[in-house]
Amino acid sequence: MPHNIAILGASGYTGAELVRIIATHPSFRIVALTGDRKAGQPMVSVFPHLRHLDLPDLVKIEQLDYSGIDLVFCALPHTTSQSVIPSIPKSVKVVDLSADFRLRDPEAYAKWYGKAHDAVDMQAEAVYGLTEFYRDDIRGSRFVAGTGCNAATGLYALLPLMQGGVIDLDDIVLDLKAATTGAGRSLKEHLLLSELYESVKGYSMGGKHRHLGEFDQELSKAAGREVRVQLTPHLLPAARGIVMSCYLKGDAEMVHKALQNAYMDEVFIEVLPFGEVPQMKDVRASNFCHIGVVGDRVSGRATVIAALDNLTKGSSGQAVQNANLMLGEEETAGLMLAPVYP
Amino acid sequence: MPHNIAILGASGYTGAELVRIIATHPSFRIVALTGDRKAGQPMVSVFPHLRHLDLPDLVKIEQLDYSGIDLVFCALPHTTSQSVIPSIPKSVKVVDLSADFRLRDPEAYAKWYGKAHDAVDMQAEAVYGLTEFYRDDIRGSRFVAGTGCNAATGLYALLPLMQGGVIDLDDIVLDLKAATTGAGRSLKEHLLLSELYESVKGYSMGGKHRHLGEFDQELSKAAGREVRVQLTPHLLPAARGIVMSCYLKGDAEMVHKALQNAYMDEVFIEVLPFGEVPQMKDVRASNFCHIGVVGDRVSGRATVIAALDNLTKGSSGQAVQNANLMLGEEETAGLMLAPVYP
Amino acid sequence: MPHNIAILGASGYTGAELVRIIATHPSFRIVALTGDRKAGQPMVSVFPHLRHLDLPDLVKIEQLDYSGIDLVFCALPHTTSQSVIPSIPKSVKVVDLSADFRLRDPEAYAKWYGKAHDAVDMQAEAVYGLTEFYRDDIRGSRFVAGTGCNAATGLYALLPLMQGGVIDLDDIVLDLKAATTGAGRSLKEHLLLSELYESVKGYSMGGKHRHLGEFDQELSKAAGREVRVQLTPHLLPAARGIVMSCYLKGDAEMVHKALQNAYMDEVFIEVLPFGEVPQMKDVRASNFCHIGVVGDRVSGRATVIAALDNLTKGSSGQAVQNANLMLGEEETAGLMLAPVYP
Amino acid sequence: MPHNIAILGASGYTGAELVRIIATHPSFRIVALTGDRKAGQPMVSVFPHLRHLDLPDLVKIEQLDYSGIDLVFCALPHTTSQSVIPSIPKSVKVVDLSADFRLRDPEAYAKWYGKAHDAVDMQAEAVYGLTEFYRDDIRGSRFVAGTGCNAATGLYALLPLMQGGVIDLDDIVLDLKAATTGAGRSLKEHLLLSELYESVKGYSMGGKHRHLGEFDQELSKAAGREVRVQLTPHLLPAARGIVMSCYLKGDAEMVHKALQNAYMDEVFIEVLPFGEVPQMKDVRASNFCHIGVVGDRVSGRATVIAALDNLTKGSSGQAVQNANLMLGEEETAGLMLAPVYP
Repeated sequence: MPHNIAILGASGYTGAELVRIIATHPSFRIVALTGDRKAGQPMVSVFPHLRHLDLPDLVKIEQLDYSGIDLVFCALPHTTSQSVIPSIPKSVKVVDLSADFRLRDPEAYAKWYGKAHDAVDMQAEAVYGLTEFYRDDIRGSRFVAGTGCNAATGLYALLPLMQGGVIDLDDIVLDLKAATTGAGRSLKEHLLLSELYESVKGYSMGGKHRHLGEFDQELSKAAGREVRVQLTPHLLPAARGIVMSCYLKGDAEMVHKALQNAYMDEVFIEVLPFGEVPQMKDVRASNFCHIGVVGDRVSGRATVIAALDNLTKGSSGQAVQNANLMLGEEETAGLMLAPVYP
Repeated sequence: MPHNIAILGASGYTGAELVRIIATHPSFRIVALTGDRKAGQPMVSVFPHLRHLDLPDLVKIEQLDYSGIDLVFCALPHTTSQSVIPSIPKSVKVVDLSADFRLRDPEAYAKWYGKAHDAVDMQAEAVYGLTEFYRDDIRGSRFVAGTGCNAATGLYALLPLMQGGVIDLDDIVLDLKAATTGAGRSLKEHLLLSELYESVKGYSMGGKHRHLGEFDQELSKAAGREVRVQLTPHLLPAARGIVMSCYLKGDAEMVHKALQNAYMDEVFIEVLPFGEVPQMKDVRASNFCHIGVVGDRVSGRATVIAALDNLTKGSSGQAVQNANLMLGEEETAGLMLAPVYP
Repeated sequence: MPHNIAILGASGYTGAELVRIIATHPSFRIVALTGDRKAGQPMVSVFPHLRHLDLPDLVKIEQLDYSGIDLVFCALPHTTSQSVIPSIPKSVKVVDLSADFRLRDPEAYAKWYGKAHDAVDMQAEAVYGLTEFYRDDIRGSRFVAGTGCNAATGLYALLPLMQGGVIDLDDIVLDLKAATTGAGRSLKEHLLLSELYESVKGYSMGGKHRHLGEFDQELSKAAGREVRVQLTPHLLPAARGIVMSCYLKGDAEMVHKALQNAYMDEVFIEVLPFGEVPQMKDVRASNFCHIGVVGDRVSGRATVIAALDNLTKGSSGQAVQNANLMLGEEETAGLMLAPVYP
Repeated sequence: MPHNIAILGASGYTGAELVRIIATHPSFRIVALTGDRKAGQPMVSVFPHLRHLDLPDLVKIEQLDYSGIDLVFCALPHTTSQSVIPSIPKSVKVVDLSADFRLRDPEAYAKWYGKAHDAVDMQAEAVYGLTEFYRDDIRGSRFVAGTGCNAATGLYALLPLMQGGVIDLDDIVLDLKAATTGAGRSLKEHLLLSELYESVKGYSMGGKHRHLGEFDQELSKAAGREVRVQLTPHLLPAARGIVMSCYLKGDAEMVHKALQNAYMDEVFIEVLPFGEVPQMKDVRASNFCHIGVVGDRVSGRATVIAALDNLTKGSSGQAVQNANLMLGEEETAGLMLAPVYP
């Protein structure tokens, strides 16, 4: 029996990506789409590539009737989510794709997002949506908070290395290369093709990127001590994808082994043979994350490179993976789409 | 019961695209892959994005055992196809993706390809693989010749206009904008990113593009008289996709109506509302073709713009669509993947 | 003795391009830059690539002191220009880069721009800035209106063909491929890299593109009769450049000859050998326009392809070329910069 | 009086870039161009963007008459240079752009390039062409070896930090982002637009990149002790440009001060205000190098980001800068071209 799905904030990129994935999902059925500024319009006028689908028109959130809805994907902007989600009936499961519920600690939230959280109770309730590490919690949960796409990429590379002395936890340098859809469909000058084409651009440098809050929370928890990484993000002339280059101190082969062991039973996380690294396009439009490890001529150094698609494994694919668990479906349902190459 | 599939020439882009599509096809199973120069290698070393799949290693064509194989996709280079396909056992169905069997007339073949055909008998036997126009022939056929990707785009726009005096058949101007994968994975200077980035480049101009042979054959047949279009191809800085802008003389609304009528029952061909046109990315990595029609301030002019993905609807998706028919499956099986946007 | 130059609206792309060109101009000196929303800022905070230059800070237009200024480049938005230019002292020469003064006829202006012109007198006074065709008028002029970048490209291809019966004046089809900087630095969704990357997009189709007003005016004047072209613009994933493919009826070699004759003494207009066509990148960041002609297998057809850089020959380079004439300098001064390839 | 210039290997990208720069150089005159595989052709058939220039046709090296030639730019492939340069008459000055004479130590050469050097004497004689650090040697030299483009970028960021204990010399991590023209016009699969578009790709990882030989040589010499950096190169979907992100241990403000002091009198090296970083496009097609420094929330960490255009400041612009010195011209002659943005 199909599950009835609503998507709040369907007029953004993660909303469109949810629709794309659910279009061939065996047991999800989209019954409602909201998009405040586009309310009243058919989805095809916002995203003409979805023309072949029979989708409900966009409505305002307040027009939404939750009866019969099994699960809501909430793809609203940051801060909007925390005002909307508390009012969703408790009988409806929720997967949030915004940044609002990723941090457990109200003070950490206030520090990274510059304001007090409006729904502290729910902040405590939310399960962090990094499926491979929170699978059991997610299965029984009513409310899952999707991870930041950049955070997910780095955490897949680092979490298995937090224990056992594999790497020096006080010396982790991350060089992030991210495509433009990570910033959404917002009208900002630096996201114009004219500006970014034939360029690369650092941003949120020096420890200001908000996803650092997630790194701090998850790595410290996994390590059982405080861990603070150094993260330098760069914006790329590409629409989809993330590559995270992690510069670590430790034995490269042991790093590789730790990653292999951690992910040997995971369907979506592929650890490459030692010495090979993924390119960004190898995972495009898919729910896969590829991770490679190389050593260096400077002894005691390991470089881990992780790649995923920010819109799929980094947000909407992850969200469907979590929804599958929450609704009792196969975790991989609808998600085995192969990467699009070239 | 699954159908056993072999792909000859799996190390090229259309080969990889076949694997991508079949990866989530409900009833096709890949049992053999050939790649002469890469024989002995696992597919993942040629296409790392297919790492999650359990695929047979690449072998040489002569190592292939056809017993148990139901259908072969032949993604070999032009002229290689015509030497290989005659030796495939008659019990095995064949979908060819090369240019070798698209033209029915040996003289036309010799004219456009600069050599005599080596398998004239099979040339006569092949069914032209433009599914929506040859569906019944394909269903009963053992051997289907896939269309040129550019030809398919133009033919979808033009074929429904060949009868009834909708347009002036002697004044058809086609401006083609094509991405680079249409030229395959071949090492040619003009296909380097350094050369094409931030550029657009005309090629095969003035009536020399080989797909004109297909236009001549199919349009003349549909019109019941000789039709010769003017085609100007341009290479774009993009990897996937084709946009064909067709400049026609005729009433734009009648043109739109003729296209709507022709495709109203087709799943994969979407005719947009009058006055709207598709962009290239609206159909990326999908089996859909979008067609739009606009009028002009110059009266009696209609512009038809058709867009499809050269690797999917233009070749490998089309090939699977035809294979579905040949093997008695649902025509849409495995092909309802939504376009990847953005 | 250097000429003192002011640039109004220096915070846009054509403003930056003017600064780039003047940076190595032998006799122009920038003494003032305006940018209303950025007033008070140094130019480097708007355009960090100009860091090595010693430039005046941006000021508001009303802060500008015109004494000592020889010439003003007005790179303001459309409609702002017509309110500002009438107040510039008559002793100061003006080159306008906006669309405000390109059309001579107030009614034509109202038709294409949807409002009555606010400075009809000056509209009549302005010289159309297509240097190669208005050189003598420009030399003696105080006020020159730069052309549309797309109009310039098409007019270079077509103007020499308006006389002598070389082509059918009633059947001119133009397929325009334009990069994103033609739309300026404005925050519009379709100009985001996320949207346009890996795509091509038609816009202002069916006879709505405003540059048609210029085509109508200039072609009709040259032909001595009304000429109405059909123009279909497409937006490309590239930052700079225009390629105009012109589909004409006429003898291709005669078309080629007419173009060669027209431009044989022109420094900036290069007519390629018959049968060759330019690519967009061949003229990047330069003041050159390349034009090629091919015939077709359909007899009596000629395709002319013209390429130029919208920011250079299409606007700011053209503006400097005209300013050179107005100020008594060599027409080519500062403009012999070779194209940047690749 | 103009200097007569020959370019050996003019059919590659650095050759074309030399021609572009010299086209507006006040005192250089190109009198000969060689290109073995293209000998007999006019330069315009290899590089149509140079159509407006009056250039000599390409000849074979052995056809070259050195009489009257003041300086040769040698833009030949690696290993070809070392066989050609010894035979150039001693009266002719030489700037080599290949990798052949960058390393002083024959053993280091053999280690990084996998073969013994064929011209060990000249290897010892060559001056390393990093102008800002070898200016006096270059001025009096007959033979200068241009640097690697990636090496130049990193060395500009690091050389001023080698003395005075500003940074930890044993912990230098470099993340390189490089555009495709750094690999020349060679036909390699990973350089195809189809492969790299919408991607990023690590290469020569783990300490295998040949420019490490230059880092070792120059940094160790400057530090007075052995220095070994960790370098991870990534190939970008862009044609021109390099961004080097350097992860250092040291006080960020002191790092910034050391760079400011080192370059305060340099025309082409711009150190940005503390906390700002350059983007790749800020220096495109120019001889400028922009360097920025940021601190980090992790104390004691500094990130230095340097950007230059691999074809200009990284090779051909640098070569002209050195030639200016060798021929007694202003060091900046012909090189003040402003960056092309956007």
